[in-house]
Amino acid sequence: MNGNDSLGKKGFKRSRSHFADRITADGRDGWPVEAGRYRLVASLACPWASRALVVRRLLGLEDALPLAVTDPIQDDRSWRFTLDPDGRDPVLGIHHLSEAYDAREKDYPGGVSVPAIVDVPSGKLVTNDYQQLTLDLSTEWTALHREGAPDLYPEPLRDEIDTVMEDVYRDLNNGVYRAGFATNQSAYEDAYRDVFGRLDAVSERLAGRRYLVGDTITEADVRLFTTLVRFDAVYHGHFKCNRNKLTEDPVVWAYARDLFQTPGFGDTVDFDHIKRHYYQVHTGINPTAIVPLGPDLSGWRTPHGREKLGGRPFGDGTPPAPR
Amino acid sequence: MNGNDSLGKKGFKRSRSHFADRITADGRDGWPVEAGRYRLVASLACPWASRALVVRRLLGLEDALPLAVTDPIQDDRSWRFTLDPDGRDPVLGIHHLSEAYDAREKDYPGGVSVPAIVDVPSGKLVTNDYQQLTLDLSTEWTALHREGAPDLYPEPLRDEIDTVMEDVYRDLNNGVYRAGFATNQSAYEDAYRDVFGRLDAVSERLAGRRYLVGDTITEADVRLFTTLVRFDAVYHGHFKCNRNKLTEDPVVWAYARDLFQTPGFGDTVDFDHIKRHYYQVHTGINPTAIVPLGPDLSGWRTPHGREKLGGRPFGDGTPPAPR
Repeated sequence: MNGNDSLGKKGFKRSRSHFADRITADGRDGWPVEAGRYRLVASLACPWASRALVVRRLLGLEDALPLAVTDPIQDDRSWRFTLDPDGRDPVLGIHHLSEAYDAREKDYPGGVSVPAIVDVPSGKLVTNDYQQLTLDLSTEWTALHREGAPDLYPEPLRDEIDTVMEDVYRDLNNGVYRAGFATNQSAYEDAYRDVFGRLDAVSERLAGRRYLVGDTITEADVRLFTTLVRFDAVYHGHFKCNRNKLTEDPVVWAYARDLFQTPGFGDTVDFDHIKRHYYQVHTGINPTAIVPLGPDLSGWRTPHGREKLGGRPFGDGTPPAPR
Repeated sequence: MNGNDSLGKKGFKRSRSHFADRITADGRDGWPVEAGRYRLVASLACPWASRALVVRRLLGLEDALPLAVTDPIQDDRSWRFTLDPDGRDPVLGIHHLSEAYDAREKDYPGGVSVPAIVDVPSGKLVTNDYQQLTLDLSTEWTALHREGAPDLYPEPLRDEIDTVMEDVYRDLNNGVYRAGFATNQSAYEDAYRDVFGRLDAVSERLAGRRYLVGDTITEADVRLFTTLVRFDAVYHGHFKCNRNKLTEDPVVWAYARDLFQTPGFGDTVDFDHIKRHYYQVHTGINPTAIVPLGPDLSGWRTPHGREKLGGRPFGDGTPPAPR
């Protein structure tokens, strides 16, 4: 999530990541894959950061890429480490993520966003490119994957995965933000129609197949999941995406529960961080900053019945060990 | 709805009606029941005013007590007749309801609320006492009731009806407002618990019986209905009463649909007025004034299956003719 997103004539516009260096096996950008060298900074509230949390768990990169969790509520200097003793990340030694941005580029004028990967020795931000970051965990960090890690971005399916992800990004991942941050009725209505049009298309697609692409979990499922898991808790009310709750679409609701109950997905979700972040930070649309007590979330653990569609969640691999 | 409600230390407080004269059969307050003499002023958005719309329909008082419908959006002079030609009520000849208040008491400092009954000859407000107004339609206006009008406040059941209505008023009718207008987390949470505690109690009560009291429709059902019909459309999201939607409680949802489909109830409901009023007027909690497109309301017309519980909606009477 980014402090540099903007509201233009055409409505809410998500800014591009400014720091797009890649950490690769061959280190061609100067950042070679190396166990323990980097630190992933994430908010458990943020859907973009949560992609990285899921992928990191699925691939077993917890030890190789340690995690710093931010306070779900930013202050005027953005994401901060107030959950740690002394309000300081114990490894990076900084109070605010912005300090790693500054170390990389002095007085960088843009927003500070998560997910971010920081180079521990230099304290410099390496990348905040949320679109590329998880793909690189899958394709460049392979030497450090756990045994049995699934292939989340299989070569023969990449075109299809990319196409699905593009539609889901535009209409859902980012569509809910366009609805919630709309400043006029017509921008809101356009976004609302995109959101539910895409949800309907996804529902149709998933009626007869367990996963979005192929018969195993892929990056496409991860990216859809982090939006779906926030849908009833925040997007439905706070962002006015309220044609229906996720729980009212039998197909998508079962699909979301299936993933939630798959090791690596639900065990990364923190509804408390999610709800406090959205409702307390966006005072422009929730001036009281009151956090709703609902919805009842107990349904996430109920049987989903999707096994009957077949599919092999981890392909030839295995689930990650329980947390 | 009242412009004089206030936020105190204990949270949102609904003001009492200042003008509590009663229109009675014997005219003891100076206002005798008389066909065509008075004008009911109501907003279709307002749950308190909507009680009067339902009761008036059920009792067949449409001709005896004509209706002036206000714009769902108040301006700085409160409720207004902008839906009428020239922005003026054709019978009272006034632009704002406040003019009838002024005619009754010059420079009255309190809020202007609906429902209100205005004496047409003098142009003076008679009453804005929403708690008494509908009971008087039932018990004092009997000479003008249609043939087959139900008894909505039967003598032998009044104690039970009053008790039920008191609980429903405190926890639901007004409880949703306490939740929505809370200015701190704890006031909100108290109200939220009242709302869902009472909804659960009502659900239990209605599981085996078709109506709240006795086996016919009474004033208690009318008062519960006008809150329930607004629940998913506004209270769920706008007022953060979001443990679950009404549609997720099979008993109360069926009960609400049963009433909605009963002549005199659903035919008084205008979801457009309801949604525009709440979302556009309360800019303190919805600064953008954007009105959500959802929820999908088509469920209100689906079969409810409550006939199997027995009950005689209109007792020895008959339904009102279709509108």
